[in-house]
Parts: sequence; C-alpha cells; structure tokens
Amino acid sequence: MTFLQGIAASNGIAIAKAYRLVEPNLSFEKHTVEDIPSEINRFKAAIEKSKEELAAIRDRAQVDLGADKAAIFEAHLLVLIDPELIGPIEDKIKSENVNAEAALKETADMFVTMFEQMDNEYMKERAADIRDVTKRVLSHLLGVQLVNPSMIAEEVIIVAEDLTPSDTAQLNRQYVLGFTTDIGGRTSHSAIMARSMEIPAVVGTKTATEEINNGDLVIVDGLKGEVHINPTPELVEEYRKIHEQYEAQKTEWAKLVNEKTVSADDHHVELAANIGTPNDLKGVIENGGDGVGLYRTEFLYMGRDQLPTEEEQFDAYKAVLEGMNGKPVVVRTLDIGGDKELPYLQLPKELNPFLGFRAIRLCLEEQDIFRTQLRALLRASRYGNLKIMFPMIATLDEFREAKAILEDEKQKLIDSGQKISDSIELGIMVEIPSTAILADQFAKEVDFFSIGTNDLIQYTMAADRMNQRVSYLYQPYSPSILRLVKMVIDAAHAEGKWAGMCGEMAGDETAIPLLLGLGLDEFSMSATSILKARSQIKKLSKVEMEKLAKQVLNMQTTAQVIEAVNAATK
Amino acid sequence: MTFLQGIAASNGIAIAKAYRLVEPNLSFEKHTVEDIPSEINRFKAAIEKSKEELAAIRDRAQVDLGADKAAIFEAHLLVLIDPELIGPIEDKIKSENVNAEAALKETADMFVTMFEQMDNEYMKERAADIRDVTKRVLSHLLGVQLVNPSMIAEEVIIVAEDLTPSDTAQLNRQYVLGFTTDIGGRTSHSAIMARSMEIPAVVGTKTATEEINNGDLVIVDGLKGEVHINPTPELVEEYRKIHEQYEAQKTEWAKLVNEKTVSADDHHVELAANIGTPNDLKGVIENGGDGVGLYRTEFLYMGRDQLPTEEEQFDAYKAVLEGMNGKPVVVRTLDIGGDKELPYLQLPKELNPFLGFRAIRLCLEEQDIFRTQLRALLRASRYGNLKIMFPMIATLDEFREAKAILEDEKQKLIDSGQKISDSIELGIMVEIPSTAILADQFAKEVDFFSIGTNDLIQYTMAADRMNQRVSYLYQPYSPSILRLVKMVIDAAHAEGKWAGMCGEMAGDETAIPLLLGLGLDEFSMSATSILKARSQIKKLSKVEMEKLAKQVLNMQTTAQVIEAVNAATK
Repeated sequence: MTFLQGIAASNGIAIAKAYRLVEPNLSFEKHTVEDIPSEINRFKAAIEKSKEELAAIRDRAQVDLGADKAAIFEAHLLVLIDPELIGPIEDKIKSENVNAEAALKETADMFVTMFEQMDNEYMKERAADIRDVTKRVLSHLLGVQLVNPSMIAEEVIIVAEDLTPSDTAQLNRQYVLGFTTDIGGRTSHSAIMARSMEIPAVVGTKTATEEINNGDLVIVDGLKGEVHINPTPELVEEYRKIHEQYEAQKTEWAKLVNEKTVSADDHHVELAANIGTPNDLKGVIENGGDGVGLYRTEFLYMGRDQLPTEEEQFDAYKAVLEGMNGKPVVVRTLDIGGDKELPYLQLPKELNPFLGFRAIRLCLEEQDIFRTQLRALLRASRYGNLKIMFPMIATLDEFREAKAILEDEKQKLIDSGQKISDSIELGIMVEIPSTAILADQFAKEVDFFSIGTNDLIQYTMAADRMNQRVSYLYQPYSPSILRLVKMVIDAAHAEGKWAGMCGEMAGDETAIPLLLGLGLDEFSMSATSILKARSQIKKLSKVEMEKLAKQVLNMQTTAQVIEAVNAATK
Repeated sequence: MTFLQGIAASNGIAIAKAYRLVEPNLSFEKHTVEDIPSEINRFKAAIEKSKEELAAIRDRAQVDLGADKAAIFEAHLLVLIDPELIGPIEDKIKSENVNAEAALKETADMFVTMFEQMDNEYMKERAADIRDVTKRVLSHLLGVQLVNPSMIAEEVIIVAEDLTPSDTAQLNRQYVLGFTTDIGGRTSHSAIMARSMEIPAVVGTKTATEEINNGDLVIVDGLKGEVHINPTPELVEEYRKIHEQYEAQKTEWAKLVNEKTVSADDHHVELAANIGTPNDLKGVIENGGDGVGLYRTEFLYMGRDQLPTEEEQFDAYKAVLEGMNGKPVVVRTLDIGGDKELPYLQLPKELNPFLGFRAIRLCLEEQDIFRTQLRALLRASRYGNLKIMFPMIATLDEFREAKAILEDEKQKLIDSGQKISDSIELGIMVEIPSTAILADQFAKEVDFFSIGTNDLIQYTMAADRMNQRVSYLYQPYSPSILRLVKMVIDAAHAEGKWAGMCGEMAGDETAIPLLLGLGLDEFSMSATSILKARSQIKKLSKVEMEKLAKQVLNMQTTAQVIEAVNAATK
C-alpha cells in the first residue's frame, strides 16, 4: 500500500483499477540471430496480433467515435498486409541475420523518410501510418502494451503524466471514474476537465506514473488531494463511507437547486457554469446553474483532423441555447493557440506560446475561421439567450475590429433573409492586465466583462501557471489581482454594465467572500461547484464582505489576505 | 544593388564589407571511392588546413580574449593529432571504400556517443571537442567556411539571422562597424547590444542572410532602418554625406556633455546610461551620463563555461564604480533565464521561458550564485556610489527574502572586518504588472524603483516582444502602460523615494515628453541617446507636459496618444 499527496483538483472519491495513459518504452538492441525461421515466425506472430488489435480498435471506434476515426485504423490495417513493406523486412532478417525489431525499424524508417521527402500530402500521410503501425508491431515483438484509450471498456482511474485536451477528448466518460497525474495544478487543463466531467481528480502527485501499475486498485481522494495505491480493505471501506458522506452533503446542497442565490442580507448574484460541450448541459441543469457563463468552443475544434463546418457549429450552439431554455449562454469565440494546439492548422511553434499568436489575435488574422464561427453563432441566436464574448482582447482596436467583423456577418445574414436575435450582448474576457487597467474605457463600448482569472493571474504575476518552479507566484488572492478585479467591476458598474468572472477563482471558497464584497455580478464555475457556492453565499453578508474587500485591497501580501478572509468568515 | 527595409535599431550610418555570422551547410552524401590513396591524401590535407586555422585562432584568442579562451583551441589541436581518432578514420576509408566525409563523421560520431555515455565530466568535454573539430575538418573537406567571429581582423558589417548575447560577447568591437539581422525588433537583444556598442544596426530585415554574401559592400542606415547591398558609387557618396551630417549633429549635441538636464521651465531630471560591461563606461562619460541607471551584470556570466568568481565580479564592479567617480551606479543583480541562457547552469527547458524560472526567482533558489554576487557588490561598494536593484520582483515576500539575504551577507562581511558603504540604496525593477499595481505598498520598503518597460509592456499586453506575429501589441504609448508608469511614479513620490526607468522607452523621442509630464526622476538609456534626449528635454515645458500626460491617461488607444504628443510638441 502506497500513498501519494497531490493537489485536490476535482471533488469526490473514486475507487477503481488503474489505467496508465503512458507511452511504453519501445527501445531495443540490434543483434544477430541464429535461428532465422523462428525469428521470421516471431515477426509473423507480431503482425497477426497487431491485425487483431487494430480490427478490434476499428470496430469500437466505429461505434464510439464514428466512421471518420475508424477509417484511420482501417488504413493501418492495409499497411500491415502490404507486401512491399512486409517483404523487405523478412528479406532483411534472412539476408542480414538481424533480429525482427531491427529489420522492422530500419525498413520502416527508410520508407518513412522516402515518403516524407515527397512533396505530396497523400504520401506524407502514408509515412505517418507506417510510423504508427511500426510502433504497434514493435510493441508486440517486445511484449509491451501500447495505450489505446479508446479501448477502455471497464471502470478505471486514468494515470498519466499530464492530460492534454486532445487526450481527454478521446476518453469515454462512461468508464473514467477518476484521474491522477504527475504534474499540473488546480488550474491546469486536466483539473478543469475533471471538474467539467464531474469526476474526482488529484493532480501534481509528481510520481503517480512511477508508482502505479496497470490494474492496481487506486483510491483518488479529490477532497484532500490524496491517492492510495493498493489500499487495505479497511481503507477501502473507510473511503466508501467518506464517499457516502460526500454524496449526502451533495444531497443537502441539491435542495438549493431551484433557489436563487442571495446573500444573508438579500443581495442577489448569478451563479453560472463553465462548459465545454453540449454534453455538459446535463450537469448545469442538475446543479441549478443560472446560465452558462463560459462555453469554451475550442472542444468543437479538437480531436479531429479538420475545422468544424458552420453546420456542425450551428447544431452545437443551437443545442446549448435550447438546452438552457432561455437562460443566458455566454459563448466564447475560439481560443486556440497557447497550450491548445490544433494540429491541422499547422501554427508555427512559438518560444512563449502563452504570450503568442492565440485566440482573438489568430481569429483577426485567420478571418475565415472566425467568420464561420460568428455566422453559426448568429444563426443559432434565435434559439435562446446568446451572449458572445471575445477572448484575449488587449486593446480597444482589437475589440472594434472583431465587433466590425461580427456586424458585417450579421448584416449579410439579415440581407439573405435569416432571422437573427436582436438582443445579443457582446462582451470580452478580461484576462490581459492592460484590459483590466483600461476597463473604464472598454466599459463604454462592451455590454459586459467576464474576468478570466487563470490567464489574468499568470500575466499579472509573469508566471506560467503550468510551470512548477514558479507556481508559487500563482496567487489569486494577491492584493494586486484583487485591485484589478475591482477596477473591472467598478468600470462596468459606472457604465451600467455587468461584470462576471469565469476563471477558476469564481468557484473558490476563499475567493467568493472577496468577490461578493467587490460587487461581482456573475460567478461562472464548474457546474459541480455551484450548489456549494450557493450554500456558502447564503451565509455571507454582502455589507460585511464589502468591508472585508476594502480592507484587503490595502494589504501587502497574499498571506495577509487569506488570514483576513478566514477571520471574517469563520 | 539590392535594398532591404528593416527596423532602425541603433542610430548612425555604417559602410563596410559583409561578414556572415551564419553556420554553413555541412551535409554530404556517403559514397564509395575508387582511388583510396588520393582520398586519404584529401583527408590529410583537410587535417593540415584545420591545424593551421586552429593555431591562428588560438594565437589571436590569446591576444584578444585571454588564455582561458585560447586553451579551448589548444584542446582542439590535440584532438587533430590523436592517432586513436585519426587512425580509425583512415582505416575506414581503406576497408570500406567510403569517402573521407563519411569515414570522418561515422568514426567521430561513434567516439562522441561513447564519451557522452560515460558518467564523467572530462570525457563529456572531450566529446564536445571532437564534435567541434569534426565540423572544422568537414568544412575543409567540403570547401566551405566555418564562421570564426574571433578571427575578424578588418572592418565589417555583421550579417546574421539573429545575434544572441553570447554571439556578441565573442565579437571584437574594434572591427564591427554595424549589424544587420533577419529577425528582432527595437528591443531585441541584438538591438540593445548595438546601441550599447554605439554601432549602427538594422534588425528585422527578414532576408539579410539570404540576400547578402560574404564580402558584399553593405550600407547599414540605422537612422531609417535601411540596408543597401552592393550600392552604386553615387549612393555610397550620398551616404558618406548623411554620415557626416549625422556626425555634425552629434557634435552639436556634444556641447551639452557637461550640462545638467533641465526642462525649459527649469525642472531637473537625471539622464543615466544602461551598460553591460566596464568597457561601456567610456561611452557613458563621453556622452555626459549623470550616472549608470542599469548595469546588466549578466554579461559577466556569459560567453564562458563556468560562473564568474567573487573576485572577478568584485574587479568588474569596482572598475565601474571607480570609473563613474562618485556618480550613481545602479547594479541589477543577475537576470538570467528567459531568453538569456547560461549553458553551464543546465536549467531545464521551459514552455514559456519569459514567464518562467528567471532572475530573482532563480537567485532565491540558487542562493550560492546570488550570495557570491552580493558579496562582490558589497565589497566593491566603498569605491563609489552603489545602488543595488533586484530584477523581476513580483511580490513583497520576494523582495523581503532577497533583502534579508543581502543583510545577512553584509553582516558577515562587517563581522570579518570588511569595509562596506553604509549608504547603499536598495531598489527593485518594476517590470511585472503586479508590482506596478502594488507600487504604493512596495514604496514603503524600497529606496527606489526603476521601471523596466521592455518586460513590463510584454507582460501587460501578454505579447512576447520577440514574436513577430504579436509585435503589434508591443505598445509603449498605450494608455494602460502610461497608467502603470504613473502608479509607480506617484507611489514613489508619496513615500519620498525616486522613480527611474531603464527600459528602451526612457530614451524614446515620443515617450520622453510623456515621462517628463508624469514626473519621472531618472531616465536611463543607451549612452548614445543621452545627448539627444538632453537636447529634447531642454526644449520641453514640464508644466505643459503635465497637462499632456493628464490628457492621454484618459485616452483609449495608442494612436490617440501619439497624435496628442505630436500635437503638443510640434
């Protein structure tokens, strides 16, 4: 029995067998072989096993992921029966007396190099197929297992170094009970995904992939940030009880599902949810969300090999707007780049992607992508209460340019006889310090602000939130961050606009009293945090929290702020 | 005759032959040879040429760069006569009938791999030597020329993709009349270096390394950002005249060298210089600098293979303090990391180095490095007017921790009988938005601020200043940046402290009226900009500039600000 301490990233308890999402080691030594026929047989057996495996993956992909994804595996199967590849490998084993691994790798590498040098997209794709298939056959020769996340068919806990958005897009949520990762913090994507999927998660364990083997029984304690590997039956029993208690508390909170969110002294705020796909709506409704405060549209663009069409986007936006049944839905336009790559866009590598060509910067340049999304949004607008929000706005010039493009598409749609809602609010994410500092000027032109604290904090502190060595600087309660939040809220109110927050901070127990005191109108968070937040706010006095906020704005350090919040809310 | 438009990075005109600082292509095809003896001779000839070349480089290094650097080339010479390397190469040509290039490369690669795998620093260094020597012999076999910047012995214009600080550290300033590079902007290191070396430079030409051959006559017009390749004699003549006019204007400015810097309505400010090494002092004195506003100590740590000793540092700091003869010298402690790497520190690669483990963050962790520098500074303090400044301070906790380390070292030195100045001011760079926003709190504990606009702007706008695709967001005159500058200056004055600026903005013609109006006390810039700035400030009214500053703080865009400055100062 082993214990790991990590960071509690998503509430709840999960108990299941481990599934390692870790690439195995495929290295080998080249050596001469004596018994050629048996080496040939070993190679043929690996080919056969690879065929069986690929056929199974193809069939499951057909069901779970659709014909598009399945076609990839069909192409891999064709490579495995291509005599022009298989023949030379067998010849090499015979003529050079080398082991099958070496014959396979050297022959495949030759073809890959040859195909890649051709100026022909089709041949380049074949090179990629050969590379993938070679890995699979090698894995069978070496007796190690490749990771096939799409093949998961039982309840598991995913163990990984980190989870990228595209990793998670491939997972079947039905079977993934929990996550644990080596790296990351509360605001890393794996953590955000876990909360959005409403599954317990512990990140930043440093050694999960070292300590946990496939099939180990694992307890993920997303309340305390603990991971127990191969626990005693007593501990499992204890955790089943904690799980039940947590479920009981959730039942208690669940009674607030149809209530409004009001403070003890009767100040009303909106509690909305952050979502990634229409599938997340169920959680929003079940948790009594007053709306969607952030619909991250990136997921529509991920885990695929080309841009989504206008129709695909229209369907998704319409589904979300209809699903929310007239409640507000704030859709953020494409925020790609940074740590979120789209392989098919082939963006150049950047030295500092977080300070690079991403989000609105990319959309203003690649206007076809942007206009397609805006058309889909405009056309969907009549199915609900749509608000459009641009990400990473740094200057008023950018906002005006983006707005002009929106107006242009709107006019064209109207001219062609389409019905467009005439009450679409247009706002911006405030996630760049410059924008917070100039919020009074922005407030004259936007309909609303939504403060994106994850990025705002990392830029304001000049510290990459994914970089462990500087993660001590990710300080949501720093007086400097709170001053920026105040500037934004005050600027909005001075112009009769509203200010929300859709960063992780909005659902944070320590931040909520401060944000209430600063006058935040809308708190958008993981759906699973809403009822807990509603329960917390019901007990807080707005007037008292205003006093608290005023006091902490003149403090010097984060530690002082936390202490003051604790004292005021104990 | 070809013309390139780039970015004017350092004033003046340079006319000289091109020297390409570009690695040549050393690729070759492996093939069989018929005439083995003549192939062996070809190989031996390449070895001989390499020996001659290395001996010449060693001798020049001995004179220009010192015995340390020369020793590296001596080691390379030893590799060239090592029979254990040379023997197997000749054997391979004979036994495998392959060309010398292939025999050399394959044999050398084998040794390199072998040595690198040993857990032994000495053997790893030998691997590096072999790799360097192999490149040199290959260059002679292939008839191409390696770049040997330390061998430049005539007046040249350097043509490069980009220049890193370590590239520039190897250049002999006597012979480098100008720079031109493919990439970079006004605040890239190559541009800063050019201004610090007082040589004309044009950066960001995109194609200089494509268009310019070694030996081409090149005109670098650092006033307009133009590069002319193989110009007509008429154009050369014209540029000689422009050069003379520019020199005449400089003579006019030079009359201000001993004057104080006062505005038209008699408000006094300090104009200081940014320097990189004690060698830069000559320029500071000649240009009438009131002090050194930023001594970048990184250069002491670069272009070498281990940390500088306390004594080496002491000598450098003492030289600068004595050289400034009692005028203030603001020394910034080590700002390494980000885009400034020190190979011998082996820092981990980061995804976003500008938001990473650098400057004070690294120094607080690697305290040996920090304490050595602080001791050298403290010991040198009695030779002049020293002010110590910490870079990249984001929180008061960091400042307090750094200050405590300084106090600890100071006490230890005093206890051991050393004489330390008792009037060392202690300040911070304000280059992180958080610090500017909390400047009122910092002002209670620091002696001064120096605003580092290069970084402050890139963090405030969330745009990497080295990334061409987002360089449009590098906006020094944005009202948001000016508001931060105001916060810092006002905070300093409220506590009776002074505020300076050592970013590129401090010497910028458009920014100077605004900074004067905002009340900046000290402007630190490239030495070459000082007299021009002094001449400009003499013509400005502080009272009028205060009105201008007040007005632009409520503007919405950079374009409006520039227009207002032009209108107010025309």
